[in-house]
Amino acid sequence: MQTNEQLLDLLENYLAQRELPTEPERLYDPIRYSLAGGGKRLRPMLLLLSCGLFADDVDVALPAAAAVEIFHNFTLLHDDIMDNAAVRRGKPSVYARWGGNVAILSGDAMLISAYRLLAQAPPALLPRILEVFNTMALGVCEGQQYDMDFESKQKVSVVEYMSMIELKTSVLVAGSAMMGAILGGADEEQSRRLYQFAIELGMAFQLQDDLLDSYGGEELGKTIGGDILEGKKSYLMVTAMSRADEEQREVLRHTYKDAALAPAEKIARVRAVFDALDVPRLTEQQISLRFDRALATLDGLNVPDARKEPLREYARSLMGRRK
Amino acid sequence: MQTNEQLLDLLENYLAQRELPTEPERLYDPIRYSLAGGGKRLRPMLLLLSCGLFADDVDVALPAAAAVEIFHNFTLLHDDIMDNAAVRRGKPSVYARWGGNVAILSGDAMLISAYRLLAQAPPALLPRILEVFNTMALGVCEGQQYDMDFESKQKVSVVEYMSMIELKTSVLVAGSAMMGAILGGADEEQSRRLYQFAIELGMAFQLQDDLLDSYGGEELGKTIGGDILEGKKSYLMVTAMSRADEEQREVLRHTYKDAALAPAEKIARVRAVFDALDVPRLTEQQISLRFDRALATLDGLNVPDARKEPLREYARSLMGRRK
Repeated sequence: MQTNEQLLDLLENYLAQRELPTEPERLYDPIRYSLAGGGKRLRPMLLLLSCGLFADDVDVALPAAAAVEIFHNFTLLHDDIMDNAAVRRGKPSVYARWGGNVAILSGDAMLISAYRLLAQAPPALLPRILEVFNTMALGVCEGQQYDMDFESKQKVSVVEYMSMIELKTSVLVAGSAMMGAILGGADEEQSRRLYQFAIELGMAFQLQDDLLDSYGGEELGKTIGGDILEGKKSYLMVTAMSRADEEQREVLRHTYKDAALAPAEKIARVRAVFDALDVPRLTEQQISLRFDRALATLDGLNVPDARKEPLREYARSLMGRRK
Repeated sequence: MQTNEQLLDLLENYLAQRELPTEPERLYDPIRYSLAGGGKRLRPMLLLLSCGLFADDVDVALPAAAAVEIFHNFTLLHDDIMDNAAVRRGKPSVYARWGGNVAILSGDAMLISAYRLLAQAPPALLPRILEVFNTMALGVCEGQQYDMDFESKQKVSVVEYMSMIELKTSVLVAGSAMMGAILGGADEEQSRRLYQFAIELGMAFQLQDDLLDSYGGEELGKTIGGDILEGKKSYLMVTAMSRADEEQREVLRHTYKDAALAPAEKIARVRAVFDALDVPRLTEQQISLRFDRALATLDGLNVPDARKEPLREYARSLMGRRK
């Protein structure tokens, strides 16, 4: 069996060897730029590791692994237009570097390229793979729309927030795991279990991302306090709003747009309210709950325990970013 | 066998019965709006008629027919953002009505929905269908990129223009015909012939569209002279440029942006140059050449001649828009 590092190498090699046409330049250069931009390769790694639970050789899953990574990068290209985001992974976003029109069209071509890779699945499994992928992909679009809707909404409940990130983040993570399982030969019940495992892992991961954004942890290209400065309705913000009194609510609602305050001051004020409302600890609790559920779901899977170790280790390493 | 009107009804019913979720509204309402917006349904009709060449019952091809129509409408949503187009088929474009972000995301969801319909193809044919669709869809993206590149290019040759519209228009028309043939049970050689037939038909159709834009023919939501007023590099324009002397070239290059001229005057001036250079007749010639090639390709297909009549009739009715 391969180590997780070897698996990542296998994936990177596979991705690097996908040849794209050179012309038209302004269609394909941004795709190369986006795919070479790094990132954790979380979704394809989960796909390959889920395949490895059932199969000794994960080569059969490489095209689908590349497909989910390309799909993920497609969503980033389009999201960056919608969010007006100039920076991605510490570099100019495709949107900032080439403009909106190129980011739209290159993104479209990436989505199509993802399907082209997906179509390489063994024909007998292809309809199931497509079904999982399509459901997941539509879910991601729905999640992004809810996320945008929330921007202009006065009140977003914790439940609404959780449904949104489940669609926007977890469904893609879970669909990846499920496709890997199917390609490895899992039956319906087993592949559903992988889906459930990864939904919980995806939630834990996203909530941790929200926590790190406001409470440190250094990651390339991320500014600490970015969510606070944008007035973003993160898990911390919606949880705080659900517990705040009138005065605290005012601080949470208005601080980010107060032109009289320096950024560091804004962050400090909002964090003081989060702290007073015990929000960091509540978030930690929710992360642990979700992560424990993920591991318990994996434990309950009917494959030899030794086979689960790489996936378990990978999940732990993901969450190890926690302070 | 069904008449072409019955076939169109069958398609419209099938499209109308596709149920989309209601939430999130701003994701799915624009899709409904776009699909209810009419249009000729050219691509799905060609798909169904191509299927009907080989099969008595075209129901098997309905999901793919809906898929190419949804794909076509997806391209319109995204193209309208890139072209900053406020009107589509005589109504506000999705971009104008809901804004760019909604048009991006609803377009993405349409592309995914097209694949979802495509995945309903008989499993034995699915890999071939996906291959045709993916190649076609990437070609359309390439064509759109070349089209945008041409805007900022001083000189576009007739050959370059023809390659661009082949990608942007004909490849989709041809892919539709090919998928219909495959779903009807055509062999490789037959389906390739349908592709070739529809490439030529698509070229004739696009060139006729260019001609009508500058020389009349009333169509809902189209302004006569629109291409001229935008300074668009149409077939007429690139042909004229390739034949113009220095003085005529000046008129062709600069008239559209001359703020001192009324629109009608601009159109008259440019048309005078087109006329002097025999461009309308040359365009007519090219249309006839392409259309005759299309019909000859259909004639050479090894199926009983009576089966070809509905497709032939449909092709003729398409070109009958000519004056």
